[in-house]
Amino acid sequence: MSDFYVSKLAVVGVGLIGGSFALALKQAGLVGEVVGIGRGRANLETACERGIIDSFTHSLVEGVAEADVVFLATPVRTLARVAAEALPYMKKGAVLTDGGSVKAEVVAAIEPLLPEGVHFVPGHPVAGTERSGAEAAFATLYRGRRCILTPTSRTDRGALELIRQLWRAAGSEVVDMTPEKHDHILAAISHLPHMVAYALVNAVVGCGDQDEDILSYSAGGFRDFTRIASSDPTMWRDIALSNREALLEVIGIFEKSLATVKSDIAAGNADALFDFFQRSKQRRDAIV
Amino acid sequence: MSDFYVSKLAVVGVGLIGGSFALALKQAGLVGEVVGIGRGRANLETACERGIIDSFTHSLVEGVAEADVVFLATPVRTLARVAAEALPYMKKGAVLTDGGSVKAEVVAAIEPLLPEGVHFVPGHPVAGTERSGAEAAFATLYRGRRCILTPTSRTDRGALELIRQLWRAAGSEVVDMTPEKHDHILAAISHLPHMVAYALVNAVVGCGDQDEDILSYSAGGFRDFTRIASSDPTMWRDIALSNREALLEVIGIFEKSLATVKSDIAAGNADALFDFFQRSKQRRDAIV
Repeated sequence: MSDFYVSKLAVVGVGLIGGSFALALKQAGLVGEVVGIGRGRANLETACERGIIDSFTHSLVEGVAEADVVFLATPVRTLARVAAEALPYMKKGAVLTDGGSVKAEVVAAIEPLLPEGVHFVPGHPVAGTERSGAEAAFATLYRGRRCILTPTSRTDRGALELIRQLWRAAGSEVVDMTPEKHDHILAAISHLPHMVAYALVNAVVGCGDQDEDILSYSAGGFRDFTRIASSDPTMWRDIALSNREALLEVIGIFEKSLATVKSDIAAGNADALFDFFQRSKQRRDAIV
Repeated sequence: MSDFYVSKLAVVGVGLIGGSFALALKQAGLVGEVVGIGRGRANLETACERGIIDSFTHSLVEGVAEADVVFLATPVRTLARVAAEALPYMKKGAVLTDGGSVKAEVVAAIEPLLPEGVHFVPGHPVAGTERSGAEAAFATLYRGRRCILTPTSRTDRGALELIRQLWRAAGSEVVDMTPEKHDHILAAISHLPHMVAYALVNAVVGCGDQDEDILSYSAGGFRDFTRIASSDPTMWRDIALSNREALLEVIGIFEKSLATVKSDIAAGNADALFDFFQRSKQRRDAIV
């Protein structure tokens, strides 16, 4: 394991994702010093108090200068800009990696910016909660979860192996795939459900009379079902726009699926409805 | 409270809903003897062993003959048929009530069948879990939940008051509304989300390659979001068909809501997406 020791880790954006990564690596004994980089002083102080980082700076240039690994954990639409600022100041042999929820757009923007001898390993730990900030970080967030790495033909194999081992040390099962395949899969299992949840809450509110809050009748099922509609609107706006094509495609598939249910209800096709619900139930039950 | 004591309660369909009602009333000391009526002997024996019912019979005619209150807790599409069989054998002054998830169709089918002096109070306890059968019943299922009663101009006021007090004793907040309003509200907050969940699982499965199970990448959010797609297909086929008009209307509203998100993604309308997600989040957060 000592082959993969990181003397200095810089985390840009010390929130749930970045903070939990630092905590997990500290707990695994794989990291020496951790510097936190961000704008909000209160959050960075919280991160220091909680032992997530050892020091912090508001200067990206200063923070990344001596780092062996730089982890970008800022909102997906800021990743290319932050990388463009940081890369010229990273040392030879250092590795930039990220935790962005969309990969093709990020990879296309960052790879052309890489200086000679500085490496980039695009990644996405498939984990999270509705909470955010350094306060929400915890060392076991990634345990038993998947982390998807999306190397390209330009990705350095040594750097890829390092980042793979770090995620394994954090407890994740690491899977490699192309950025495009990642975006297609995440569009289906994550981005589409969020769009559907937001649209569902909006629709149900719209079904009520003006003088009555229809949501007050909702039982546990509705609350569980719409929990993800409580997610951060900025984050999901950015994801939706960054993964536009794949997301539009899966929304289209979902619309057809719902249209089938609707026309079977309208036509009173009892057997078709039963078969449809039964198949969905079987597939759903198989994953739990 | 003794004004509302029920000497003999008959429960037709001793599953989660019927069994929990009996247990709650026993615990409240409001019921003398409980007879369970059903087809499956094993389930009825379980109900006896668990103290949910005191005796059982497979004969509806025999089971309801001496009952003061008959609670129908069978699937919604069977309610009218079971009521038609039971009503001629119920004693004068007895009250028939039900727990069906759809009300207008049930009320329209049962009210014309009422013999002189036998009363009907349509109801719907808004509670449940994905589990079913007498094994799943528990006394506190209805505690803190709403129970909607949908009396009509033909409903006997004394019978309505009795059933209201029984649900209150089970821990529910009782609300009265018309059958039509009930069906509209439930279509929005319960039936629509179930249709969406079934359609979503079906769509996500359809997004995968033949050689890969895309669901294996799903994280906690997807599992929570689609939990209700594990519900009983027979029950949901029946609800969908029984509440067809209201459900088709709210599916239409949801389709428009999703179409708005889709076109904002396609057009890159960042501000419109943010506002939409933000509004949904605020409405969702207000109910938890």
